[in-house]
Amino acid sequence: MLSTSLTATEFNFPRLNPTGVHIHVHDPATISLPLTEDFSTFYYNQTLDHFNYRPDSYITFPQRYVINFKYWGGANAPIFVYLGAEAPIDGDLRGIGFLTENAALFNALIVYIEHRYYGESVPFGSWEEALNNTSTIGYFNSAQAIADYAEIIIHIKRQFLAKNSPVIVIGGSYGGMLASWFRLKYPHVALGALASSAPILYFDNITPQSGYYSLVTKDFREVSDTCYETIKNSWSEIDKVTSLPNGLSILSERFNTCKPLNDSFELKDYLDSMYSGAAQYNAPPRYPLLIEGNKSCHVNGPTNISETTVGWRWQTCSEMVLPIGRGNDTMFPPYPFDLEIYSKFCNKLYGVSPRPHWVTTYYGGHDIKLVLQRFGSNIIFSNGLRDPYSSGGVLDNISDSIVAVPTVNGSHCLDILRSNETDPDWLVNQRKEEIKIIKNWIDKYYADLGAMLFK
Amino acid sequence: MLSTSLTATEFNFPRLNPTGVHIHVHDPATISLPLTEDFSTFYYNQTLDHFNYRPDSYITFPQRYVINFKYWGGANAPIFVYLGAEAPIDGDLRGIGFLTENAALFNALIVYIEHRYYGESVPFGSWEEALNNTSTIGYFNSAQAIADYAEIIIHIKRQFLAKNSPVIVIGGSYGGMLASWFRLKYPHVALGALASSAPILYFDNITPQSGYYSLVTKDFREVSDTCYETIKNSWSEIDKVTSLPNGLSILSERFNTCKPLNDSFELKDYLDSMYSGAAQYNAPPRYPLLIEGNKSCHVNGPTNISETTVGWRWQTCSEMVLPIGRGNDTMFPPYPFDLEIYSKFCNKLYGVSPRPHWVTTYYGGHDIKLVLQRFGSNIIFSNGLRDPYSSGGVLDNISDSIVAVPTVNGSHCLDILRSNETDPDWLVNQRKEEIKIIKNWIDKYYADLGAMLFK
Repeated sequence: MLSTSLTATEFNFPRLNPTGVHIHVHDPATISLPLTEDFSTFYYNQTLDHFNYRPDSYITFPQRYVINFKYWGGANAPIFVYLGAEAPIDGDLRGIGFLTENAALFNALIVYIEHRYYGESVPFGSWEEALNNTSTIGYFNSAQAIADYAEIIIHIKRQFLAKNSPVIVIGGSYGGMLASWFRLKYPHVALGALASSAPILYFDNITPQSGYYSLVTKDFREVSDTCYETIKNSWSEIDKVTSLPNGLSILSERFNTCKPLNDSFELKDYLDSMYSGAAQYNAPPRYPLLIEGNKSCHVNGPTNISETTVGWRWQTCSEMVLPIGRGNDTMFPPYPFDLEIYSKFCNKLYGVSPRPHWVTTYYGGHDIKLVLQRFGSNIIFSNGLRDPYSSGGVLDNISDSIVAVPTVNGSHCLDILRSNETDPDWLVNQRKEEIKIIKNWIDKYYADLGAMLFK
Repeated sequence: MLSTSLTATEFNFPRLNPTGVHIHVHDPATISLPLTEDFSTFYYNQTLDHFNYRPDSYITFPQRYVINFKYWGGANAPIFVYLGAEAPIDGDLRGIGFLTENAALFNALIVYIEHRYYGESVPFGSWEEALNNTSTIGYFNSAQAIADYAEIIIHIKRQFLAKNSPVIVIGGSYGGMLASWFRLKYPHVALGALASSAPILYFDNITPQSGYYSLVTKDFREVSDTCYETIKNSWSEIDKVTSLPNGLSILSERFNTCKPLNDSFELKDYLDSMYSGAAQYNAPPRYPLLIEGNKSCHVNGPTNISETTVGWRWQTCSEMVLPIGRGNDTMFPPYPFDLEIYSKFCNKLYGVSPRPHWVTTYYGGHDIKLVLQRFGSNIIFSNGLRDPYSSGGVLDNISDSIVAVPTVNGSHCLDILRSNETDPDWLVNQRKEEIKIIKNWIDKYYADLGAMLFK
């Protein structure tokens, strides 16, 4: 076992980097909602390695995808495909409202595809085996994942006689990156993409390292200058108490920790993740989000290490290198991202080095407006500007059809989550605008299709 | 050794399929031209596997690229990059006139990059080792090759402080496919592509199987109905003679073969490749091309098996499955492409099966106008309509900036070869049109760049 048995602190992992903790799309609570019988589960015999012809490239694994036929109009009606991200797909079936709530308007088929190496879509027979060493975990990356999506969508279109159906791919956070990249790499498979809260510019130092934590800081300061000052001063206060005799006991008691604190880092890291989480998921109707509100103790209680924690750690240690650090301009202690330390940590953990420039080599990102204003089409980049990840998002229109739909008060992936009667107007309108744009893509496509078929 | 020691006939290989024989861009004679000192050779430490993180993915190999600095204006001046195809790059340095002849007009840097597994750009230390088995040859494919090109171009731009230089990629035949695919997959690396004689639609039955041989037939018939009739009737004539006592001796003598014929297939196959080659390379000023004109004997003389023959056989047996067959409408005996036989042959030869749908899955091709009329930009598809491969080319404009530049009388890759005083007007004009289009891309780019830098 490479990674699940190791804890971050053992290797001085920069855990304050929030990517491992906070990139979830939705509230885990939604996972427990009941699933209607409209959802049918399928498995596709997926190629392990799309980019090689070694004998072991031909190994296949069952990849899970789920279809909801309830609204499907058949013939050339659209297909909405949710691209799974760094988690099992189960939660998305309930949590992502965008597909089920808008399918009726389009008579659309709804598809959810699970990302390789998560949930039931794990090669080599088991999660343990798949993550066992770099020979088995090495196929776990985004280029292989979007090639999986291409194969499955092509398969579904053939299977359900939907050759000419326009496909719209939808994803949030990491899945939003995949959606926008999918449209760019596979325009012949997807007509358009809705990329919600996708920090595609948080690579290779396109975005300043401090972007994430500067926004967390801004969020707090906008609500209360006092709150901001208190947090800003708290770190040295914690250090001061720590240096007292019995300092850690005092802190443990004061913060009602589940176990006595081992060091002050444990507490600071916890507070960091609470503040960041509150900023990132600061959603109506009850902002700020209450995290751990009803727990009997805090900071270092038992946590179950999820597939997401383990899987995303590998992904960030191989290609998804988001250099999130902190300068002097936040309410947090400075903590610059150090690629050398990061690489050493990853190397110790997995035996291979990250490729920090690969994402921009393969997908681009630098000078994105210059590159895409005359290339590509049909991508919506939606962001909530209170989401710290929006610092790495596309916030301005790139062209007529590669557009930004930001909301001033929004947080992470709000637009694609289940709608709610209490949703504020700006959120309702954001979703309406997205639907209008997508409808426009599809209308144009049908006109083009008609011109082709009946010329 | 997997492939070099095996002859095609041993495995009933459909050798009449011309892809293995005739996809060369230029006359091998040009290779012997002298090379000026303007060319400097470099080696890039290339990643063996861009799409995996197995330990052996991190193996690197020296990849050769050649730069001509003679016309380079520095600063933001353009970079012309010739994308190597299924041969060592040496011949292209001399044979491809398009770059050296037009660089002065653009003050362009000229770069030629050798394709992995050819020439000096072979991993695993040697050609023999690299092709030894599927564990080493498996990395030999187009997706890896264009990722190589992306890495090297990014490296060159950094190295020569040319971050904002527009890059135009140029290729012919298979290399032309790579050029167009490169622009589609890496728009952030290349501003535009000139894809000469690129049969990107000859996959997955987008183009009728017979396309190639129908055009060969048309070429001959247009010149002479008698010639066409003679060839059309010759096959049964050969069969008739073969069935005589001493039939093969009679044929051997009549065709002045280098060795006595073993069977009539040997002769027919030779004639097929002569006719196809004459059609494909039918170039001014002396059409038809004289092949083997000054040889003392014919058909089965000693041939040296080139890297191209061996390498391209692997490529066509893995992903570059061009289903070229013949129906009843050509001057050749019918010979349909049979994917099952083809796969069996490849499997026997390499131990792995071809992936005949992969090219269209990864690069597209079906309904290309519908897909690209509102996506992508800046690709020229040039074709000579007498080139049998033009049957699988893009012959009509797709959009304002994805355009076709065909010539009625042209043959394979003529436009990018060295120009000649005797070149007919239509060829001179084709090249002028291409330059005009490229200049327009670059002008627009500079305007966009200026707007970005000085906003």
